[in-house]
Amino acid sequence: MDVAFVLYPDMTALDLVGPYEVLGHQPEVTAHFVAASLDPVRTDAGLTIMPTTTFDVLDRADVIVVPGGAAWAEVLEEGVVAAWLRKVHPTATWTTSVCSGSTLLAQAGILDGRPATTHWALRDELAARGAVVSTDRVVVDGSVVTGAGVAAGIDMALTLAGRIWGDDRAEFTQLVIEYDPRPPYRAGSPETASAELVAFVRGVIVGS
Amino acid sequence: MDVAFVLYPDMTALDLVGPYEVLGHQPEVTAHFVAASLDPVRTDAGLTIMPTTTFDVLDRADVIVVPGGAAWAEVLEEGVVAAWLRKVHPTATWTTSVCSGSTLLAQAGILDGRPATTHWALRDELAARGAVVSTDRVVVDGSVVTGAGVAAGIDMALTLAGRIWGDDRAEFTQLVIEYDPRPPYRAGSPETASAELVAFVRGVIVGS
Repeated sequence: MDVAFVLYPDMTALDLVGPYEVLGHQPEVTAHFVAASLDPVRTDAGLTIMPTTTFDVLDRADVIVVPGGAAWAEVLEEGVVAAWLRKVHPTATWTTSVCSGSTLLAQAGILDGRPATTHWALRDELAARGAVVSTDRVVVDGSVVTGAGVAAGIDMALTLAGRIWGDDRAEFTQLVIEYDPRPPYRAGSPETASAELVAFVRGVIVGS
Repeated sequence: MDVAFVLYPDMTALDLVGPYEVLGHQPEVTAHFVAASLDPVRTDAGLTIMPTTTFDVLDRADVIVVPGGAAWAEVLEEGVVAAWLRKVHPTATWTTSVCSGSTLLAQAGILDGRPATTHWALRDELAARGAVVSTDRVVVDGSVVTGAGVAAGIDMALTLAGRIWGDDRAEFTQLVIEYDPRPPYRAGSPETASAELVAFVRGVIVGS
């Protein structure tokens, strides 16, 4: 089973590495790290990842994982990831995104009229691109699975692992990665964070 | 503030990338990715990361983050990471680990008689190396902060961010990364997973 993890400059590393840790170890999986070229890809805060293949070369995958990143609008403008998604999505059993990665799926036409989720601060941006935006943490709609912001990639991938390999395998994986979250604060959602903080973070992320 | 993220072959990528996503974006932080050489480091399931410096060169850091990995016993035997920790820990304001990274801290003498945590399946292994093992998800003891298995790195780093920059900053970060976990299963802890699954995973991890 070929899993394509998409890389592009300034992507949010955790968007990718959450799903990677859940999916990458499954014995059926061959992991591919696909980018515009084989040059190292510098992610958001400096962590630099080596691609193993390129958008030109990799023309199919069973599972596609598209991360988000703060520079998502520039990535849309560039169009390279969406062009690749248009090519490979029809070959995939599962096409997935985390955080603003959903906007790339939307640009590729994959979310037209579909329920989907994204980072909480980008719901309007995703709705403007044709998706039926949900506030759920993970949305499964046919072959498309979307996750909310950054850390939601772990929830998204465990949900996906359950669909692909069954609940027992997903629970095995959850116990291996000791995913028993105990956030030391309650500010992880716009519903639980203070209104001031929500407004501030929204301003940082969408610039308004 | 110099944060040293330790890299070594077969390390668990999420152990590092959870804390990286929390700490790496803070405006005071300069992130360093330190390894035995500048060669790319292949992590557990193929994700390959570029170091920015080496153990020979980097002789101090304000914060040290040591990930774990399935090959932790071999990494102990090799001794390279522990030797570097002995050199730099005295320079650090905070020395931290995730998962079996704690065994490397222990090997360096940093956990002698200290409360510390680790992956749930490795508690005996850590106790055998001098730590006073806790079942807590995150343990702060003076300048040493340890996290439980893999996904606990996010909880560890948010706890640390609160200590370094205050609760407001930690909550800001939690909301940015939408860390509002909703695990689709309840198998993330040996207390909530089935006894059969716990025994099976323990066998996979510690080989008994």
